[in-house]
Amino acid sequence: MRVAKKIDEVRSFVRAARMRGAQVGFVPTMGALHQGHLALIRACVAQNDVSVVSIFVNPTQFGPREDFNSYPRPFEQDVALCEKEGVDLVFAPSAGEMYSPDHATYVEVEGLTAGLCGQFRPGHFRGVTTVVSKLFNIVEPDTAYFGEKDYQQLIVIKRMVADLNFPVRIVPIPTVREADGLAVSSRNLYLSARERRAAPALYRALCEGAKAAAQGASGFEVEKITRQALEKEPLFKLQYVQAVHPETLQPREDQGVPMVIAAAAYLGSTRLIDNIKVEGRS
Amino acid sequence: MRVAKKIDEVRSFVRAARMRGAQVGFVPTMGALHQGHLALIRACVAQNDVSVVSIFVNPTQFGPREDFNSYPRPFEQDVALCEKEGVDLVFAPSAGEMYSPDHATYVEVEGLTAGLCGQFRPGHFRGVTTVVSKLFNIVEPDTAYFGEKDYQQLIVIKRMVADLNFPVRIVPIPTVREADGLAVSSRNLYLSARERRAAPALYRALCEGAKAAAQGASGFEVEKITRQALEKEPLFKLQYVQAVHPETLQPREDQGVPMVIAAAAYLGSTRLIDNIKVEGRS
Repeated sequence: MRVAKKIDEVRSFVRAARMRGAQVGFVPTMGALHQGHLALIRACVAQNDVSVVSIFVNPTQFGPREDFNSYPRPFEQDVALCEKEGVDLVFAPSAGEMYSPDHATYVEVEGLTAGLCGQFRPGHFRGVTTVVSKLFNIVEPDTAYFGEKDYQQLIVIKRMVADLNFPVRIVPIPTVREADGLAVSSRNLYLSARERRAAPALYRALCEGAKAAAQGASGFEVEKITRQALEKEPLFKLQYVQAVHPETLQPREDQGVPMVIAAAAYLGSTRLIDNIKVEGRS
Repeated sequence: MRVAKKIDEVRSFVRAARMRGAQVGFVPTMGALHQGHLALIRACVAQNDVSVVSIFVNPTQFGPREDFNSYPRPFEQDVALCEKEGVDLVFAPSAGEMYSPDHATYVEVEGLTAGLCGQFRPGHFRGVTTVVSKLFNIVEPDTAYFGEKDYQQLIVIKRMVADLNFPVRIVPIPTVREADGLAVSSRNLYLSARERRAAPALYRALCEGAKAAAQGASGFEVEKITRQALEKEPLFKLQYVQAVHPETLQPREDQGVPMVIAAAAYLGSTRLIDNIKVEGRS
């Protein structure tokens, strides 16, 4: 396995692979790899001839009061995990390699980024779509893998790829959960033991909402049921619960399934997000 | 020569060429091809194995009160010109092929787009960078050709390519002029006979500014000299004259060369732009 710090090294590696007729798969990450990332990486390695993983904590997707500096960076461990999974190239650029001092270009998806997490993290999705555009242009993959855990991000990236005609196929990978239901996330590392015990309440609340949705409840009703379920866990401070259409992310309001129920909530200073999709009535 | 209306046709044509090891050159145009475009196309054909020209009057780069509907579209003639120059593929998509009804993604270069034409055409450069991003992702060229006539556009595109890591080399091509100095432009077709006779005054005024710059004048002085020279032609209504740094597009103000002197002015309802670069003192 190669570890490249430089863009040119990635380009020549991938172009050589492509000359041999190889299919190239790509998993963009911010490192601190966990079982969720490993699910993406395993799908990538299984489905492609050559697999590239990027590890880059992207400054442009963090707000000024967010956790850019404290975000975990266990680099050696991440590289070892990639090696073990059969990754061919890890791309781990510096911030200076990715952003020149006169960087001025941003990719923005309007509409889809306005609600859900977008309303609480201004500029976040612009940072994500900008860095993913850059990474797609550097790696030039045939296929790229994104987790359903970050559901809004997945839909935004799919919209961007369609709108800008990126020659990349996006493969969504289901959320990986701990035995107690907690969605695996790099930010779970921030939780105290007490918060960690409370954390599965978020997914349990979403499951209650999903049950009501499958029985015919409207978006409004589902949001209320989910909110009330989460309120049973006093450590959680809810940021939002929203029932939205799985493709347009428009609020379901008085409509029922299909819907994605998405929520963000704080445990202490740690912000957790999760979601559940309900395709039809049971 | 092939004429493709569909994105998929372009992709398969270019990918087949690339499989044979061909270098692919690209000239994006809005059609109404003139000697300026032909200079781009000739450079492209001479320097590449396969040459692609796009003909697409891009709605997103026109303002609501601009000439999108009346913009000339002599399609058969454009295709014949491309054929004659040895172009391999003309890509002429419909607006619906390029923009889906739920299109929501825009590429924006900040800063460089704020001054010069940008201040008078809000959204124009966003439309240009968005459509050029799309075209680059569709054609996947090695090299793309842009005219120095649209100087701000050239600098904006170069910045976008660098910032988003597009694997495309941008080749600038000098402005082509009529015998009397008027920069060749599709919009020259709009001029009445009287306006056409007045039109070379714009380039003459820029040349007077350039002479002063080469003799040591500051940006402020150059702007004043150019403005006064243009005022001698009463048919012209000046929109702006600005002396800017050739790379950063920052106003030169009390600094001298290097500079680009850029101007936009109306002849009747036709807006003409032109520019001249002064590298050093004579």
